[in-house]
Amino acid sequence: MEALDYHAEERRKAEFDVEEMKVVWAGSPHEYEMSDRVARVVASDPVFRKDNRTMLSRKDLFKDTLRKVAHAWKRIIELHLSEEEVNKLWFYVDQPAYADLHFGMFIPAIKGQGTDEQQEKWLPMAYKMQIIGCYAQTELGHGSNVQGLETTATFDPQTDEFVIHSPTLTSSKWWPGGLGKASTHAVVYARLITDGQDLGVHGFIVQLRSLDDHSPLPGITVGDIGMKFGSGAYNSMDNGVLRFDHVRIPRNQMLMSVAQVTREGKYIQSDVPRQLVYGTMVFIRQKIVSDASCALSRAVCIATRYSAVRRQFGSQNSGPETQVINYKTQQSRLFPLLASAYAFRFVGEWLKWLYTDVTQRLQANDFSTLPEVHACTAGLKSITSSATADAIEECRKLCGGHGYLSSSGLPELFAVYVPACTYEGDNFVMLLQVARFLMKTVSQLGSGKKPVGTTAYMGRAEHLMQCCCEVESAEDWLKPSVILEAFEARAAGMSVTCAKNLSKFSNPEEGFAELSADLVEAAVAHCQLIVVSKFIEKLQQDIPGKGVKRQLEILCNVYALYLVHKHLGDFISTGCITPKQGAQANEQLRLLYSQVRPNAIALVDAFNYTDHYLSSILGRYDGNVYQKLYDEAWKDPLNDTDVPDGYHEYIRPILKQHILTARL
Amino acid sequence: MEALDYHAEERRKAEFDVEEMKVVWAGSPHEYEMSDRVARVVASDPVFRKDNRTMLSRKDLFKDTLRKVAHAWKRIIELHLSEEEVNKLWFYVDQPAYADLHFGMFIPAIKGQGTDEQQEKWLPMAYKMQIIGCYAQTELGHGSNVQGLETTATFDPQTDEFVIHSPTLTSSKWWPGGLGKASTHAVVYARLITDGQDLGVHGFIVQLRSLDDHSPLPGITVGDIGMKFGSGAYNSMDNGVLRFDHVRIPRNQMLMSVAQVTREGKYIQSDVPRQLVYGTMVFIRQKIVSDASCALSRAVCIATRYSAVRRQFGSQNSGPETQVINYKTQQSRLFPLLASAYAFRFVGEWLKWLYTDVTQRLQANDFSTLPEVHACTAGLKSITSSATADAIEECRKLCGGHGYLSSSGLPELFAVYVPACTYEGDNFVMLLQVARFLMKTVSQLGSGKKPVGTTAYMGRAEHLMQCCCEVESAEDWLKPSVILEAFEARAAGMSVTCAKNLSKFSNPEEGFAELSADLVEAAVAHCQLIVVSKFIEKLQQDIPGKGVKRQLEILCNVYALYLVHKHLGDFISTGCITPKQGAQANEQLRLLYSQVRPNAIALVDAFNYTDHYLSSILGRYDGNVYQKLYDEAWKDPLNDTDVPDGYHEYIRPILKQHILTARL
Ligand SMILES: Cc1cc2nc3c(=O)[nH]c(=O)nc-3n(C[C@H](O)[C@H](O)[C@H](O)COP(=O)(O)OP(=O)(O)OC[C@H]3O[C@@H](n4cnc5c(N)ncnc54)[C@H](O)[C@@H]3O)c2cc1C
Ligand SMILES: Cc1cc2nc3c(=O)[nH]c(=O)nc-3n(C[C@H](O)[C@H](O)[C@H](O)COP(=O)(O)OP(=O)(O)OC[C@H]3O[C@@H](n4cnc5c(N)ncnc54)[C@H](O)[C@@H]3O)c2cc1C
Repeated sequence: MEALDYHAEERRKAEFDVEEMKVVWAGSPHEYEMSDRVARVVASDPVFRKDNRTMLSRKDLFKDTLRKVAHAWKRIIELHLSEEEVNKLWFYVDQPAYADLHFGMFIPAIKGQGTDEQQEKWLPMAYKMQIIGCYAQTELGHGSNVQGLETTATFDPQTDEFVIHSPTLTSSKWWPGGLGKASTHAVVYARLITDGQDLGVHGFIVQLRSLDDHSPLPGITVGDIGMKFGSGAYNSMDNGVLRFDHVRIPRNQMLMSVAQVTREGKYIQSDVPRQLVYGTMVFIRQKIVSDASCALSRAVCIATRYSAVRRQFGSQNSGPETQVINYKTQQSRLFPLLASAYAFRFVGEWLKWLYTDVTQRLQANDFSTLPEVHACTAGLKSITSSATADAIEECRKLCGGHGYLSSSGLPELFAVYVPACTYEGDNFVMLLQVARFLMKTVSQLGSGKKPVGTTAYMGRAEHLMQCCCEVESAEDWLKPSVILEAFEARAAGMSVTCAKNLSKFSNPEEGFAELSADLVEAAVAHCQLIVVSKFIEKLQQDIPGKGVKRQLEILCNVYALYLVHKHLGDFISTGCITPKQGAQANEQLRLLYSQVRPNAIALVDAFNYTDHYLSSILGRYDGNVYQKLYDEAWKDPLNDTDVPDGYHEYIRPILKQHILTARL
Repeated sequence: MEALDYHAEERRKAEFDVEEMKVVWAGSPHEYEMSDRVARVVASDPVFRKDNRTMLSRKDLFKDTLRKVAHAWKRIIELHLSEEEVNKLWFYVDQPAYADLHFGMFIPAIKGQGTDEQQEKWLPMAYKMQIIGCYAQTELGHGSNVQGLETTATFDPQTDEFVIHSPTLTSSKWWPGGLGKASTHAVVYARLITDGQDLGVHGFIVQLRSLDDHSPLPGITVGDIGMKFGSGAYNSMDNGVLRFDHVRIPRNQMLMSVAQVTREGKYIQSDVPRQLVYGTMVFIRQKIVSDASCALSRAVCIATRYSAVRRQFGSQNSGPETQVINYKTQQSRLFPLLASAYAFRFVGEWLKWLYTDVTQRLQANDFSTLPEVHACTAGLKSITSSATADAIEECRKLCGGHGYLSSSGLPELFAVYVPACTYEGDNFVMLLQVARFLMKTVSQLGSGKKPVGTTAYMGRAEHLMQCCCEVESAEDWLKPSVILEAFEARAAGMSVTCAKNLSKFSNPEEGFAELSADLVEAAVAHCQLIVVSKFIEKLQQDIPGKGVKRQLEILCNVYALYLVHKHLGDFISTGCITPKQGAQANEQLRLLYSQVRPNAIALVDAFNYTDHYLSSILGRYDGNVYQKLYDEAWKDPLNDTDVPDGYHEYIRPILKQHILTARL
C-alpha cells in the first residue's frame, strides 16, 4: 500500500537532489546521519509526545517536563549517547526544561569562572546530575545592567564565609530558568563586599535546597515567577524568584578564576586575563544564531507545506482552485523567510568556526580579535533573533485562520521563541554595543590601524562611498560582487554618516545617546552585510549534489535582494544605488520567486524535520491537513460533553428569561 | 493619607490639560462621561475579575465566560443600560464571548438580509436572547473565497423545505465564534440549489440545538475546534465546527431580502439593490479600526508607564539610574506607536461619519461612493490591524524580560488581538482589493471621470509626480501642507508606476497577479495617506483645552515623519523627496521625540483606562510595579507547595542516581 502524500506532485517537481541538500543543511554527512537517528529515537518514544502540551495545566505541564527530563536522562545512559547526540536529543525533545540551564549555563559558568580545584569539586557532581544548578544573575530590578545588581556577598573573616543577602525587594533574583522548583544549587551573581569595600559583581555557588528532601534551606525563599507568554511554550520551565536572608556559604564557593578573596579578606586579581570569560559568551550567542535558523526553518516548513495544500480562489472551468503558494504576495512574504532560514544556518556555521578560532587565540593570549568578535556575535544574535521572531508570526499569518489554532504549532513556536530577543542581551542593547564598536572603528580609520575580519570593508570606506553600483539590467543583480559592494557601501556609508553627525556634538556621550536610533540602524546594516557575505562565501565552496548549489545561489540572491528592497531608503540615501537600480532589484526578486516556487517543498523537506518535531498539523509531511484538523478538534476537553458545563447555571436562565425582570 | 503614585512627578511635567485630552480621545464630553461610568461599573464588580484568566483550564475559562455573560446580561437589565452603554459594558468586560457574535454578527445578518417579516419574527427573540445565534460562514476548506463554500441548501418542493447538507469534509463549518457550545441558532451560508441549479451562496437561519435541553438537533454534529493562540485570550470563545446531515428547515428561513425562492422553487431576485449589504460591512470594518486604536493604546499605555518606572544604566554619582523612557532608541520605538494610537483613533472617528454618510446615500439609492468607501474601509481595516498587532508585540519587547510574563498583560493582549489581521477579510486579500480599485481609478484618469473622496488626489497625479518637496530645513517638515504633498506624491507615484508596469502585460489579470506584491505596497501607501490626512483634518478643527491641540500636532508630525523614515525608499524613488530631505525628516523626528517625552505619561493617561481594563502589573496607574509583580508570582499553582509534584518520581531518582546504571 502506498503511503498517502498530498505533496507527492510537488516533490516530483524539485530540480535538485533533496538528500544532498539535507547534508548541506545538517553540516556534514556525519551530522546528518546522527541528527536523523536521534530525531527518530525521540519521535518514536511515547513519553516524548507533545501534541497535548497546550492543553495541560501549569502543574501538569511542569510535571510532564520533569518526566521527560528523567526519561531523557535514562535513555541517554541506556543508549550510551555521545555529547553531540545528547545535545541533539534535548533539541528534539523540544521542551524548555531545567536541564537546559543546568547543562547550558550552570556547568559552563563553573567551567569558565571556577579555579581548577573548584572545577574538580563541582563538575563531576554536576555532570552526573547529583546536583542540579541554574544561573541566577537577573534580579527584579536589573537585567541588562548587570553592574547594577543589588544582591550582596559580604565576607565575614571571623567565620571565613560569605553572607549572601537580598537587601531590597528589587534585589530578588527573578527569571533564572530552573530556579523555581528544580534546582538544588545556583551560580548566584552578587556584589562582593569585603572590608567594607564594594568590589562589584562576582559569581558564587550557593546551595538552595536540601539534597535529602528538596526543601529550601534556611534563609532561602524560592518559588516560580508564574505564567509566561502562551500556552505550553516556556511554561514548562520553572523560571524562579529567590531571596536570601543572610545565607552563609564557605569562602571557597566564590568562583575564583579571575579574582580571589583570601582567608584574611584581601581581594586579589589573578593573572588569568578577564577576557577569557568572553569565550563562553561567544559560544552561547553562536548557539542562539543556530537556534534562530532552526526555529525559523521550522515555521517556514509549516507555512510552505500548508501553502501548497491550501487552495483559495482562481478555479477555472470548475477545476481545482489555486494553491495559495502560487500567489505572488504569498511568495513575496514566504520565500524571503525561506531564504533567511538558509542564510542564518550558514552564518551560524561560520560562527561555530569563529568560536573555535577565538578560543585558540585566547589560549595563545591573543586578544586582538575579541572586540570585533564580540560585536559580531552580539549583532548577529540580535538581528537573527529579531528576524526569526517576526518571521514565525508572519508564517502564522500566511496560514490564514487555521494558523491561529494551537494545532498549527505556530502559536506555541512563537511564544517559546520570542524571549530569545530579550535574554542573553536585549537586542537593542546589543545593537548599541555593535554601534559603539563601529564608531570606534571609523574613528581609527585615519590612524593607520587596519580594520580586520568582518570590518575589513571599513578600510575601503572612502572608496565604497564614492562607488556607483554598476547594475544596468535586473539580471546584473545576480552577481555576488554587485550585491556585496552594495551592502558594503550601504553599511560603510551609514557608519560614516553617523560618525560625522556625532562629531558635531561637543560631548560624545551625549551625541551617542542623541543619535542612538540612527546608530542602531547602522549596526543592523553592518550585521546584514555579514550574513550576506557569509552566504556568498559558502557558495564559493564546493557543494556536491545535482542542482544543490544552484538552489542555494537562488536563495542567496533572494535574501540579499529582499533586504535591498526592504531597506531601499538606506541604499539610495548612501548613494550606492539609484532608484532605478532599486526597481531592477525588485524586478529580479520577482523572477527569483518563480525559480524558488517549484522547489519550495523540497527546500523545506531538506530540513529533515519529523512530524513529531514540527508538531503541526498544517506542516505534516503528507499534507493530510483537513482530516487531521478535524480529528484533533474533538480532543479538546470542552468537547467531553455535548452540553457544556455551565449551561444550567448560565445559559438556560438567559434563554428561559429567568434573568429578566418584568421591565423588559 | 495620600495614594501611592510613582508617576506623580511625570504627571506634574505634562504641558497640557489631561482632562480635556480625555474628552478628545473619547470623542465628546458625553462619550467620556458615559465610558468612564461604565468602566467603573465593570472594574468594581468581582464577577468581572480577569487577573487569573491565563491560569484557568479551557473548561474553567469557558465556564467563566458563560458566567460573565450571564452576569453582564443581568446588570444590563438591572441598570437599564442604553445601547451605547451596553456596547461599552461588553468592551470593558473584555473577554471574547458568544454574545459578541450574537449581537455583532447574527442580529446584523438578519437585519441586513432578512425581509421585514423575517425581522419581525426573529429579532425580538434574538434581542431578548431567547435564542442565541452565531454567524456560520467559514468552512474548513474555504474562508477568504466565500464563493467557494460547499455546504448545500437544496430546495425540496414536496415539503417546501431546504435540506442543509455538508457534502464533504472540507464543507464542515469551522471557526464561527459562539458556534461550538453556546449557540442555539446560526445564520448558515450555503449554496442554494433549486431545480438542479446552483445559485451560489445565500444565508439561512438554522436551529442547531434544542431549546429545552441544549442538545444538538438530529442531523447536526457540532463542537469546539480546540485551543487557539495563547493562554486566556480567545480561548474563552467556543469557535466551532458544524456538520449537517440532511437537516431540513422551512423555506421561510432563507434570508430573502435580496433574493427569494418561491413555493414552486423559483428563484427571484428582489428589487432591493444588492449593494445594501455593503452597509453592514462598512460598519463592521469601521469597528475594527476603532478596536485597533483601543488595543494599540492599551499596549502603548502599559509600555509607556513601565518605561518610566524601569531604570537601567546611566547612574551618575550613584544617583538613580536612567528611566529607560529617556533612551532615544526606546523613544524611537515607542513614541511612533503612541502617535499611531491617536492617528487610528481619529481615522476611526472619521469612518464612523463615513458609515453614516454611506447609509444615507444607500437609502437615497445613491451607490456612487460605494467602490471608494469599500476600498477605503478594506484598506484601513488592513493597515490598522497589521500595525496594531506588530505594535503590541513591540510594546512587549519594550518591557524587556518582564514583558514576557502573563502578568504584564501584553502576551494575552497580543494573542487575543492578532486574529483581527485575518478575520473579516485577510489583510493581504483586502489590500489586493484596494489595489484593484486604485488601478481602476488610474485607468479612468484620462476619461474625464474625476476621482472623489479619498482618491481625489489622484486627479492631480500628473502634477504630484512632478512636484518637488520644498523642505530646506528639518523644521519645514512640520508644515501640514508639506507632509500632505509628500504622502500624496508617494501614493500617486506608486499607483501610476504600477499601472504603467501593468500595461506591459498583454493579459491584465496575469499582470495583476505578477505584480501583486508591488500593488499591495501601493495600496498601503494610499491607506497611510488617508490616515495622515484625516489626522491633519482633525487638527483643523477647534480643539479646546490648554496645550491639547499642540500635543496632537506633535503626535501628528511624529506619525507622519515616522512613516517617511520607515518607507524612505518609496518616497525617494517616486521622486518627491531627496535623500537629504529624508535625513531632515529623520532629524525633525528626533526633535519631536524630545517634545513628546515630558508629556508621555499624561498622553497615555488620557486613554482613561482603569487598572482593571489594562490588566497589567507593568501598566498600573500608580507605577507600583515591583511589589505587585512579586506578590503576583506566588499565586501560581506551582507555588502551592515548596517541593513540586513530581519530585519523588522524577527528580529524586536522578539526584540519588537511581537512574544510573553501573556504567557511568
Ligand atoms: C524566558 C526568559 C528566560 C530567562 N532566563 C534567565 C536565566 O536563566 N538567568 C538569568 O539570570 N536571567 C534570565 N533571564 C533574564 C534576561 O536575561 C533579562 O530579561 C534580559 O537580560 C533583559 O533585561 P531586562 O529584562 O532587565 O530588560 P531591560 O533592560 O529592563 O529592558 C527594557 C527596555 O529598556 C531598553 N534598554 C535597557 N537599557 C538600555 C540602554 N542602555 N539603552 C537603550 N535602551 C535600553 C531595552 O532595549 C528594552 O526595550 C531570562 C529572561 C526571560 C524572558
Ligand atoms: C479568531 C477567529 C474568529 C473567526 N470567527 C468567524 C466567525 O464568527 N464566522 C465565520 O464565518 N468565520 C470566522 N472566522 C474565519 C475567518 O473569517 C477566516 O479565517 C478568514 O476569512 C481568512 O480566511 P482563510 O482562513 O480561509 O485564509 P486563507 O484565504 O486560506 O489564507 C491563507 C493565505 O492565503 C492568502 N490568500 C488567500 N487568497 C489569496 C488571493 N486571492 N491572493 C493572494 N493571497 C491569497 C492569504 O493572504 C493568506 O496568507 C474566524 C477566524 C478566526 C481566526
